[in-house]
Amino acid sequence: MSLSLVNGLASDQLNIADRGLSYGDGLFETIQINAGKALLWEDHIQRLERGANRLNIPFDNQLKQAFTEDFSKLLAVADAEDKTLSQQSVLKLTLTRGIGKRGYKADPQAVPTRIASLSALPDQQFKQQHGIEITLCDTRLARQPLLSGIKHLNRLEQVIARSEWDDEQITEGVLCDTQDNIVECCMSNLFWFRQGVLYTPDLTYAGVAGVVRDKLIALCKQHQLAPIEQGHYPLQHLLEAEQVFVCNSVFNILPVVRISSVLERAEIATFNIGTHTKMLQQLLQQYYLKET
Amino acid sequence: MSLSLVNGLASDQLNIADRGLSYGDGLFETIQINAGKALLWEDHIQRLERGANRLNIPFDNQLKQAFTEDFSKLLAVADAEDKTLSQQSVLKLTLTRGIGKRGYKADPQAVPTRIASLSALPDQQFKQQHGIEITLCDTRLARQPLLSGIKHLNRLEQVIARSEWDDEQITEGVLCDTQDNIVECCMSNLFWFRQGVLYTPDLTYAGVAGVVRDKLIALCKQHQLAPIEQGHYPLQHLLEAEQVFVCNSVFNILPVVRISSVLERAEIATFNIGTHTKMLQQLLQQYYLKET
Repeated sequence: MSLSLVNGLASDQLNIADRGLSYGDGLFETIQINAGKALLWEDHIQRLERGANRLNIPFDNQLKQAFTEDFSKLLAVADAEDKTLSQQSVLKLTLTRGIGKRGYKADPQAVPTRIASLSALPDQQFKQQHGIEITLCDTRLARQPLLSGIKHLNRLEQVIARSEWDDEQITEGVLCDTQDNIVECCMSNLFWFRQGVLYTPDLTYAGVAGVVRDKLIALCKQHQLAPIEQGHYPLQHLLEAEQVFVCNSVFNILPVVRISSVLERAEIATFNIGTHTKMLQQLLQQYYLKET
Repeated sequence: MSLSLVNGLASDQLNIADRGLSYGDGLFETIQINAGKALLWEDHIQRLERGANRLNIPFDNQLKQAFTEDFSKLLAVADAEDKTLSQQSVLKLTLTRGIGKRGYKADPQAVPTRIASLSALPDQQFKQQHGIEITLCDTRLARQPLLSGIKHLNRLEQVIARSEWDDEQITEGVLCDTQDNIVECCMSNLFWFRQGVLYTPDLTYAGVAGVVRDKLIALCKQHQLAPIEQGHYPLQHLLEAEQVFVCNSVFNILPVVRISSVLERAEIATFNIGTHTKMLQQLLQQYYLKET
């Protein structure tokens, strides 16, 4: 049984000359599979396409179709061999510029590499209901507008940031940029409510524009839940919030109940799980149900 | 015949769960093989070790020894099958954090992945003698002191910069950081002489500390060729230089005779190949001869 495909064929091996390895020259998506459906599939594929356009990696309908077929194939294998995975899992799609010769210059004839794999979905229900503890990372994200927003394979900053804490009680770490503006968390986007306004960092200079982040902004506007502001905020702006939450495709929405220091988990701030956060959780669930 | 090894075994395939692919979580070295000897071998291995220490990838004498054996094996294969490669070639060493599960958190038990491959060395003699034309890139490098200096696998900035020109007459492109200070070229380090002083950018915030760059600084000091200054310089400082050159392990030293715009190769500045540049070329060659 193979739960990974490379260019549509059952495999877990990649050529070492692939530019995804040499330079991180590619993109990826992490998609939640629920009841056999890929949540926000179109949104994920669109972000992948935006990233490919930014990096000038060829992306056409044929490629999009190929990813759809990859997903179907993986689902069929999982369905035959491990029903848990075909019902609830995480689908990871990777797109690289393909195999290259030595040197940064891309071969315009190179055929992009497609990787798709299915893995277990960690249960988030308890955290979704009771909230999580997060910390503040010392790692600062560089400001690089050429790479901000897209989900590319150059992720050393996240690797370094995630190495800052080892305590399983801490789910996430807040990241600021080199000018001390809040950007996101290591693997999720960050939102907070203050006096009825929903805030989330502007991602012009750093950060990944999460698919769930975009969906929540749209849902919030559509249902007139709260006015939204995207801007550059110092840490203090977050610490004075009334409700805080993080989101991504695996977490959905996780309310933040406590921010602690890495050292000895000293309390920095605490928050209640408020009505607005719960309403957004419901709106997202309703959207998923409608979608599937 | 295999001219690549993965963890010491003849192979050109890597597991797709390797963090080198997932996050660019690794390092590489490009080493010139001349007359069957790896030039500046110790310096390359030391830089690899510095990078591994920075990224907290385990690096011990056993790993160092394993890379040495990889090189010997590749050389033996080349010697039997393609003598050109065993005499003159480029050895690429890659070190990744190894295979990982989903998520940025590194497994402290993970075994680092070693890749070694041999490829043809492009002849640089004409360029070394007659000099090269370079351009000015629009791409700006982000300022990230956590990643500066080391030769890691997050190279999208270089990929984007290198895509700015397609003209084979242009060998390199000058890169500034987001504060418009000169950093380096796409694949080499940059030096220039002005009124007897040798200048090269400080790499605290961005750039790769090249092995040849370090060796040239040492040789220049040792032979009292010129005082050296490392600092943050605007483009104008370079354009007013008397002699300019770039260096890396494949180029050695390439004098710059012309800086042109990407568009229509309009002349921005021209330089002579001066005595000081030629002397540094000689000093480096003498060092190589002594070393081998």
